[in-house]
Amino acid sequence: MNHQFHQTMFLAFLFFGIILTTTSAQEHSAKISAQGYAAMTAGRHFVPYEFERRAVGESDVLIEILYAGICHTDLHQVMEDWRKGIFPMVPGHEIVGRVAQTGKNVQSVKVGDYAGVGCMVHSCGECEQCRKHEEQYCPQTVWTYNSLDTNGTPSQGGYSDKIVVDENFVVKIPENVPLERIAPLFCAGITTYSPLRYNNVKAGDNVAVAGFGGLGDMAVQYAIAMGAKVTVFDVNESKRQSAMDLGAVKFVNVRNENELIGLNSSFDLMISTIPTRYDVGMYLRMLKVDGTVVLLGMPPGDQTPMIPAMSLMGRRKVYASLIGGMKETREMLEFSVRNKIYPHVEIIPIQKLDEAFQNLAEGKALFRYVIDMKSLDDKNRDL
Amino acid sequence: MNHQFHQTMFLAFLFFGIILTTTSAQEHSAKISAQGYAAMTAGRHFVPYEFERRAVGESDVLIEILYAGICHTDLHQVMEDWRKGIFPMVPGHEIVGRVAQTGKNVQSVKVGDYAGVGCMVHSCGECEQCRKHEEQYCPQTVWTYNSLDTNGTPSQGGYSDKIVVDENFVVKIPENVPLERIAPLFCAGITTYSPLRYNNVKAGDNVAVAGFGGLGDMAVQYAIAMGAKVTVFDVNESKRQSAMDLGAVKFVNVRNENELIGLNSSFDLMISTIPTRYDVGMYLRMLKVDGTVVLLGMPPGDQTPMIPAMSLMGRRKVYASLIGGMKETREMLEFSVRNKIYPHVEIIPIQKLDEAFQNLAEGKALFRYVIDMKSLDDKNRDL
Repeated sequence: MNHQFHQTMFLAFLFFGIILTTTSAQEHSAKISAQGYAAMTAGRHFVPYEFERRAVGESDVLIEILYAGICHTDLHQVMEDWRKGIFPMVPGHEIVGRVAQTGKNVQSVKVGDYAGVGCMVHSCGECEQCRKHEEQYCPQTVWTYNSLDTNGTPSQGGYSDKIVVDENFVVKIPENVPLERIAPLFCAGITTYSPLRYNNVKAGDNVAVAGFGGLGDMAVQYAIAMGAKVTVFDVNESKRQSAMDLGAVKFVNVRNENELIGLNSSFDLMISTIPTRYDVGMYLRMLKVDGTVVLLGMPPGDQTPMIPAMSLMGRRKVYASLIGGMKETREMLEFSVRNKIYPHVEIIPIQKLDEAFQNLAEGKALFRYVIDMKSLDDKNRDL
Repeated sequence: MNHQFHQTMFLAFLFFGIILTTTSAQEHSAKISAQGYAAMTAGRHFVPYEFERRAVGESDVLIEILYAGICHTDLHQVMEDWRKGIFPMVPGHEIVGRVAQTGKNVQSVKVGDYAGVGCMVHSCGECEQCRKHEEQYCPQTVWTYNSLDTNGTPSQGGYSDKIVVDENFVVKIPENVPLERIAPLFCAGITTYSPLRYNNVKAGDNVAVAGFGGLGDMAVQYAIAMGAKVTVFDVNESKRQSAMDLGAVKFVNVRNENELIGLNSSFDLMISTIPTRYDVGMYLRMLKVDGTVVLLGMPPGDQTPMIPAMSLMGRRKVYASLIGGMKETREMLEFSVRNKIYPHVEIIPIQKLDEAFQNLAEGKALFRYVIDMKSLDDKNRDL
């Protein structure tokens, strides 16, 4: 008995010793200290936040973040408009930075390259959607923040100094491009580019863009580059000139009933970026036979638009679209750079997040806000 | 003056004489006496009705009607569910008969042929939709009844002994087919065939048919003939066996919540024939990514289903479809005959119209009612 007891204790110590050593070694070599800004609870208030990124795995890329765009979705997430959030929450899924480290299997980028990350950081890789390069519709997609990573820890986004991401969800960015304007392409860009491609927009098509904000700005530029005649709908008269400056053939102020006359059965495709409840039926009636309305904005749950079935007669279709796959994201970046299609941005220091979110919530943001991550070091910045 | 007066009078008489002679000659040679059953005012009551068909023009075909199907739309029209009706109204747009006379330019049918007529009797022939053989979406389509013909007179449908129709809207029917079961193909057949073709249904596709009545019966048969695995949804348990007998892989009783479990993200295509207000969102959630719900039933105006935009996420599409073009109608007939796809019908004498409409209104009709037009001569028929 005594001998047996000692033997058991020895094995137990050995066992725990191995565990302790292994864990300690992993923790030591693995976790990466990161700093950013987080909402600690639901709401539009952000504070400095230190946290850990996972170790750089064999297929991972460590990116030092230079710029992060602020998307309207970030506001929805911290406000829990769609679902309960995971807090502390570091938002941000329009990320541009420089590659600082790569796992041994990484081939598409090398240290020193510029690289971008969008709304996703993982998918199963095996389902029908993944095989079709539509990872955004994989049932197991891990979103860049406010999502649980494969190891069960909350993912954290781009309002931070660094991020570790699987190579498959990292996009190489070419040299000599305006990095601060590239960042929003990874959400606003792909979200608008994807449905235009999906619907095969071509020269001469009549395309409408309803809602001329951050997404609308991109949709108009892409559609024009694809050869379409673009009509812009908005409720804000002050946007008329900038729509026409971009090359729209017409601006319609939806608040002016006279401007709506004669528009029924006019459009092949309508991209709606309107983020509030509105009359989708009105826009459906403006479609030609076989036309399509694509919904990109999605209001909070109880405000979801209700679409009257009668307005769908004549094979007038409606669907909702979510970003695009990684293959298409790379194609979008190439198309954007080649055609010099970039969003209008306003660069802000990270300390101004609260103010920026306030403006977003009140519809006062004129352009896409982009955080200059250099400001993170600026502890005593005069605000 | 006197001479001038006589000359003027002579010219006047000559002028009016020519008009009178011409008119009289036209009327004499032109109008064709027809008899049928009409609703004299809005409601479900029909009485014998004598009226005139136009003369057989150079491109026209005179058809002696043998059978006419009764469509749920006929009920909507006499009840003014969608819009004000033109009365007296002779409904009927599922028409089969024998060619009795042809205009000199007619080439596709000859006297003695069997021929069918569906929901349309005219379209402009020049617009984008007509050029694409989608005459049902031409803005100037003349419907077979309850519509104004090009000369401004009301069109009258198939609950009658004869009809005069432009050759382009007449479909030749082959010999040796069950004529009474062919009639409903010209509405129920093409209405379901068209969206299945439009969505390229192919072997192995998961297709759902919601609402297993007259249209559902056809949709299930066509989809199976195209190789699809078909699931049938209905609220009537008594239809389970006939759905399985037709070859459905599954019948779902929508009133039984347990049967709805696990069906989300299952179907490539859903054909909904439900003619009342219902939760389209539930069916949209049953679609795979990129799937489509096609609405064929259309409830009365104030009952039009309202579709929540959120259920369209994942490029899940919804649209409403209306019959099909004439080219596709000919293709549908060929496909139906080749695959022996016919509706289940119940033959009735025209004197039983009121009773049939009562059953339709109460949802008691088990099969498609088809009027045997021989009964028209049967003045003293014992009812």
